[in-house]
Amino acid sequence: MNPLMLIKIISILFIILSGFMAVPAGIALFCREALPFVAFAETIGVTVLVSSVALILLRKKRADTLSTRDGFLMVTMTWVMASIIGALPFYLSGAIPSYTDAFFETMSGFSTTGASILTNIEILPRSMLFWRSLTHWLGGMGIVVLAVAILPLMGIGGLQLINAEAPGPTVDRLTPRITATAKLLWLIYIGFTVAETLLLMAGGMDLFDATTHAFGTMATGGFSVKNRGVGHYDSRFIEGVITLFMLIAGINFTLHYRLLTGRLRRVARDSELKAYFLIFVTMTAAVAFSLHGTSYATVGECLRYASSQAASIMTTTGFSSADFEQWALLGQIMLFVLMFVGGCAGSTGGGVKVMRLVILFKQAINEMRLLIHPRGIFTLKMSGSMVRKNTVYAVSGFFFLYAAVLLAVTIIVASAGHDITTSFTTALATVGNIGPGFGKIGPAEHYAFYEGYIKWALSFAMLAGRLELYTVLVIFLPRFWRG
Amino acid sequence: MNPLMLIKIISILFIILSGFMAVPAGIALFCREALPFVAFAETIGVTVLVSSVALILLRKKRADTLSTRDGFLMVTMTWVMASIIGALPFYLSGAIPSYTDAFFETMSGFSTTGASILTNIEILPRSMLFWRSLTHWLGGMGIVVLAVAILPLMGIGGLQLINAEAPGPTVDRLTPRITATAKLLWLIYIGFTVAETLLLMAGGMDLFDATTHAFGTMATGGFSVKNRGVGHYDSRFIEGVITLFMLIAGINFTLHYRLLTGRLRRVARDSELKAYFLIFVTMTAAVAFSLHGTSYATVGECLRYASSQAASIMTTTGFSSADFEQWALLGQIMLFVLMFVGGCAGSTGGGVKVMRLVILFKQAINEMRLLIHPRGIFTLKMSGSMVRKNTVYAVSGFFFLYAAVLLAVTIIVASAGHDITTSFTTALATVGNIGPGFGKIGPAEHYAFYEGYIKWALSFAMLAGRLELYTVLVIFLPRFWRG
Repeated sequence: MNPLMLIKIISILFIILSGFMAVPAGIALFCREALPFVAFAETIGVTVLVSSVALILLRKKRADTLSTRDGFLMVTMTWVMASIIGALPFYLSGAIPSYTDAFFETMSGFSTTGASILTNIEILPRSMLFWRSLTHWLGGMGIVVLAVAILPLMGIGGLQLINAEAPGPTVDRLTPRITATAKLLWLIYIGFTVAETLLLMAGGMDLFDATTHAFGTMATGGFSVKNRGVGHYDSRFIEGVITLFMLIAGINFTLHYRLLTGRLRRVARDSELKAYFLIFVTMTAAVAFSLHGTSYATVGECLRYASSQAASIMTTTGFSSADFEQWALLGQIMLFVLMFVGGCAGSTGGGVKVMRLVILFKQAINEMRLLIHPRGIFTLKMSGSMVRKNTVYAVSGFFFLYAAVLLAVTIIVASAGHDITTSFTTALATVGNIGPGFGKIGPAEHYAFYEGYIKWALSFAMLAGRLELYTVLVIFLPRFWRG
Repeated sequence: MNPLMLIKIISILFIILSGFMAVPAGIALFCREALPFVAFAETIGVTVLVSSVALILLRKKRADTLSTRDGFLMVTMTWVMASIIGALPFYLSGAIPSYTDAFFETMSGFSTTGASILTNIEILPRSMLFWRSLTHWLGGMGIVVLAVAILPLMGIGGLQLINAEAPGPTVDRLTPRITATAKLLWLIYIGFTVAETLLLMAGGMDLFDATTHAFGTMATGGFSVKNRGVGHYDSRFIEGVITLFMLIAGINFTLHYRLLTGRLRRVARDSELKAYFLIFVTMTAAVAFSLHGTSYATVGECLRYASSQAASIMTTTGFSSADFEQWALLGQIMLFVLMFVGGCAGSTGGGVKVMRLVILFKQAINEMRLLIHPRGIFTLKMSGSMVRKNTVYAVSGFFFLYAAVLLAVTIIVASAGHDITTSFTTALATVGNIGPGFGKIGPAEHYAFYEGYIKWALSFAMLAGRLELYTVLVIFLPRFWRG
C-alpha cells in the first residue's frame, strides 16, 4: 500500500472535479441563482484548498508504480469522495434539504444509475440540474479514465486503474500507450455527446435541455431535467435520437474506435455486438407484439415505445418515454428480463453485460456437448478468438456475486416492509445502474420514500454495480489489508 | 443410439411402475372405490400388455452397454412416459376431469414439485390421493435408480443413468458396484420413510395420512392429503417431525450412509452440509426475527413457523404449516431468497443445490484473491479435497442455464397476463421443484387457474428442473442427434 501516493493522486482528481464544478457555478452566476452559486463556490473553494495543501505537502513524493491493490482502493475512494463532495452543492444550496438524499442523488448520478429522490425535478435551479446531469457524464466514461488521459503522472499503473473503473471483463488497449487509449476513449465520448446535443437541438430542444439529455444518454444514466422525462417532449424525432444514442453508448467503445478507423470487418464479426443487437431486436419485437391492440393502437406507436424502452432498460439508461407499468404484463416482463442484461463490455452501460452472458451461454452449450462426447475438447470462442479459461472463471465468479448482491440488496430493501416486486427490482435497478424498476419505483415514480438507511445501502449498491462488484468488494476481504 | 435397447429397458421400467400402481388399486378395492379401481386396472392392464409384447418381441436383444446419449434419452423418455401413464388413473376415474390437469399433477408428483391443480384435495378418493403421494416417493429417489438397484440388466451403464437422474454435480459410488450403491440409496430412503411414518402415527395421524405425508416429506415433494396441508393437524409434534425429516431428505444420502456406517469424521467436515445448516439456521433466525411482534406473539411460535417454512422452501418440499403470504414482508423475502437455494447434491431436494452455491461462492472469493495477488495460485477445496476445474465449469454453466430457464418460464407465464411476482415465483417454484410461491400461487392457493399451454410449459419446467436441466436440454441440441 502506498497511502501518500493515493492522497496525492486523489488530490489531483479533486482539483479536476472542481474544474468541472466551475461550469454549473458559471451557469448559476449567469442565471443569477444566488444560493446555488454560493454553494458551488464554497464547495470548490474548500476542495481546491484542501487538495492544494495536500499536494504542496506531498510535492517531493515521486511518481511511483501503483500496485493492483492501490488501484482498487484509489478508484473506490475516489468515487465515494466524489459523491461526498458532489452532494455538497445540492445540500448547501437547499435544493435537496437532506444530506442523505443529496448523497444518494449524486451517487446515482456518478454511477449513471439515474434513480432520483426528487419528486419535482423542474423546480430545481438550472445550475443544479446541470450539475446533476454532469455527474452522469463524468461517471459514464469515468473520472479516473479521464485523469489517466490528461495527466502524464497517471500513466504509471494506468491500465489497472482503468480496469478497476471501466466496465467489462477487460479493456483492450487501443494503442500501445494507455494514456493514448484513455484519451481516445474520452474523445469518442465527447464526439458522440456533441453530435447528440446538436441533433436534439435540431429536434427542438434548447441548448440546456439538449446538453443535459445528451449527458444522460451517452453515460447511460437517465437523469432528465423534466418531470416526465423524455416523454415530456412527446416528439418522435427526439425519442429516436435518444434511442439511437442509448444504443451507441451501450456498445464497446473499442468498436467505435475501430469503426472510425475503418476496420469494419473486425466490428462485423464481434460476437458481443451481434448478441447485443439480437437481444435488442428480439425483445423490441416481443414488447411491440405484446403492446399491439392492448396499450397502443398502431404498429408504429408500438414499435416506437417498445424500441425506446427496450433500449433504455437494456443499456441501463432508464430514460422513460412511457410509463411501462401501465403496459400489458407481457411487455412489462420483457423489460424485467432485460434488466438482467446490460450493455456491452467497455461501454458506459451497466448490468451483467452482454459479453458475460454470451460467454456463459457458450460455456453452458459446451458443457452439454461434453455430455454427448465426454472425451471431446470444446473451446470457447468470442469474435473468432479463443477465450482463456481464466476469463470464464472470472465471469462465472462475477455472475454468482451479482446474484448474491442482488438478493442481499433485496433483503435490505424488504427489511423496511416493501413488497417483493419493489424490493427485487430496486436491487436490479440499483446494482444494474438502471434507475426505474417495478412496483413503487416504476418509471413514473421516484426513490424519495425510501428510509434513510435504505438510501445509504442503495448508494453502496449503485457504486458496487458501477465498479463491477470486484473493485469494491475486494476491499472487504481481510486478505486485502494483510502484508 | 440404440433404440431397441431403449424400448426394452423402458418396457421393464413400466412393468415395475405398474407393480407400484397395484398398491393404490388395492386400496381402491379395499375402500370400494369402483371408478378408481377400474381406472387403475385399465391403466395397469394396458401398460403391462404393451410392455410384455415389446419384451417378447425384443427377447433376443442382448444386454448392451448404453452410451451416455442413450442414458439421457432413456431417463427423459421414462419420466415423460411415466407421467403420461401415471396421469391416466386420475383422468379415467374422473377424479381430475381434464387430461392436461392430470398430466400436470402427475409430473408435479414425479418431479417432487408438489404444485397442485386441485382446489379441493379432500374430495378425491383415497386411492387417488395415495397414488398422488406415491408419485412423489417414486420420483424422489428416482425410478431409474430403483431399476438399477433391482435389475441386474441395468448394471451396464448404470452409473450414467443414475447421474442423468440423480440430483447434484456427481453421485459418489458408495460401493464399487453401482447396483449395490443404488440398492443402498433406496434402502436408506425406505428406512427414513418408515421411521417418519411411525413417528407421525405416534403424533396422532392415521396410517394413511402418515404414509402419504412421509412420501411427501422424504421426496421433498409437498403434496398433502389435506386442503390446509400440514397446518391441518395444528400439532407442534407433527410439524416438528416433518421439519426434521425435510431437513434429512435435503441432505446428501451418501452422508446418511456414512453416518450409518460410523464414519462420523467425514460427515462432520463436509463443506456442503455445513453450508446447508448455516443457511438454514441463519434464515430461520431471520424469519423468526421478522415475525416476532408482527405475525406471531411468542418467540416459540415464531421459531416454530419460521423453521418449518424455511426448511420447507429451502429443501424444495413446499409443505405449508402457515400461509406465509400473510407474514411480515421481510419474512416473505427471506423465503423468496431461499427459493434460490435448494437441497444438497445427492439429496431428494431440488433447486440450484447448496453444493453448487458453495463452489460458486468459493470461486468468487478466489477471483478476488487473484485480483489482490495476480500471480497467486488459489485452489478450490470442498470437504478438504480439491475441486477439479471441470466441475467448476459445469457448475457455472448450470448456474447460467438455471437463470436462463427461470427467465424463459417467467416470460411464458407472463404471456397470459400474470403479474411479475406470480410469473417469476412460478418459474422459481416449478424449475426448483418447490411448489408454492408468491402472488397467485401462494401456499394457500393452487395452479388450477393457469391456462392450458402454461400448464404444459410448467410440466416441462418441472421435469427439466428435476433432471437438473442438462439431461433434458441436451436432447434439444442438434449435435445430440448427429452421428
